[in-house]
Amino acid sequence: MRDVYQEQLDQLAGGLADMCDQVADAMAKATRSLLETDLQLAEEVISDDVRVDDVRASAEEQAFALLALQAPVATDLRIVVSAIHGAGDVERMGDLALHVAQTARRRHPQPVLPAEVAPYFAEMGRVGVALATKAGEVIRTRDLARAAELESDDDAMDDLHRHMFTVLMDRNWSHGVGPAVDITLLARFYERYADHAVAVARRIVYVVTGQMPGPLTV
Amino acid sequence: MRDVYQEQLDQLAGGLADMCDQVADAMAKATRSLLETDLQLAEEVISDDVRVDDVRASAEEQAFALLALQAPVATDLRIVVSAIHGAGDVERMGDLALHVAQTARRRHPQPVLPAEVAPYFAEMGRVGVALATKAGEVIRTRDLARAAELESDDDAMDDLHRHMFTVLMDRNWSHGVGPAVDITLLARFYERYADHAVAVARRIVYVVTGQMPGPLTV
Repeated sequence: MRDVYQEQLDQLAGGLADMCDQVADAMAKATRSLLETDLQLAEEVISDDVRVDDVRASAEEQAFALLALQAPVATDLRIVVSAIHGAGDVERMGDLALHVAQTARRRHPQPVLPAEVAPYFAEMGRVGVALATKAGEVIRTRDLARAAELESDDDAMDDLHRHMFTVLMDRNWSHGVGPAVDITLLARFYERYADHAVAVARRIVYVVTGQMPGPLTV
Repeated sequence: MRDVYQEQLDQLAGGLADMCDQVADAMAKATRSLLETDLQLAEEVISDDVRVDDVRASAEEQAFALLALQAPVATDLRIVVSAIHGAGDVERMGDLALHVAQTARRRHPQPVLPAEVAPYFAEMGRVGVALATKAGEVIRTRDLARAAELESDDDAMDDLHRHMFTVLMDRNWSHGVGPAVDITLLARFYERYADHAVAVARRIVYVVTGQMPGPLTV
């Protein structure tokens, strides 16, 4: 009986880690669709999002069943509660990748990004995908050093996010209000995506140590 | 023993409903600080946010203790799991009110909003505060008809949100990129605030019926 239970706990964590890989892939594709004005790729991200939602619903059901049937305590209970939170965070990351893809689709065949800001979004995409992938690793390995890395990776995202506003507010900005509105929202989507990845890693720190690391500044 | 347990469940729900009132108050004040360029009110919202964070942390601890010590099942388990989710949503609503107040503070003594868009934000504030208050009522009463009302209230918020983009994209927009960036983010904060209130109400529907209503379109 205990073996089945441990297997269920492992499955729950494994499913969540796989979800991280799914939303990393979604954000990689969404960023490419944005940078390469690739409608087909955007459509792929949009239609695949329902799969992330399904995995989230199934993770919640598993967590609920574990609570009801096994009444876990201590570390096991922290795993289940953290998985409930984590599944919400990762689903939201999928939604944010979806929003990036929707923006690319909305403006197609026009590019969303003026050439001079495209490199910043390439970098935000790279950092975001790395964060999601690392969050998955942290779930699988419970490596606290790795979990701490996400905090500094997130600082890089925050710097990029802030820099976009500097670019938009510069008097030399020549692309008008429409692209500025798109870029404002897009930068926010990447920044929130990163925050959710950090939140997932922090929950793993909590699983291992019983303590939540400091609050996320948003 | 059962009586203490029921009391704990009631306390958990009551605490969450009180949190809704707190973030309704925060959004009411944040909106006034925005519309009236009131720095003191903005500061109040900013310094009060830590109280919402504390209540959230305490709700999570209560939920955790209930799971560990009482091993609730069926409806009781749904209450606890929904409270865990709900506390996250309501804390986020507090953060979003905080962001509105921070925007007012950042631009002070300049107003953030050109006169012609102020009425829309007054209305978004009104709808947002009503949604948060109603979410608190739904937690207290488990009134499913009331829970359903939040969906149509949220449609009103979505309409306002969409309308702001129409205003910004209009060729007659004469306020330049800076205010457009602020308004883009502010409108997003109100819209997300409303989405989280709806999510709280949906969790109560789930507590009562065992079924989640349809997914939130974001």
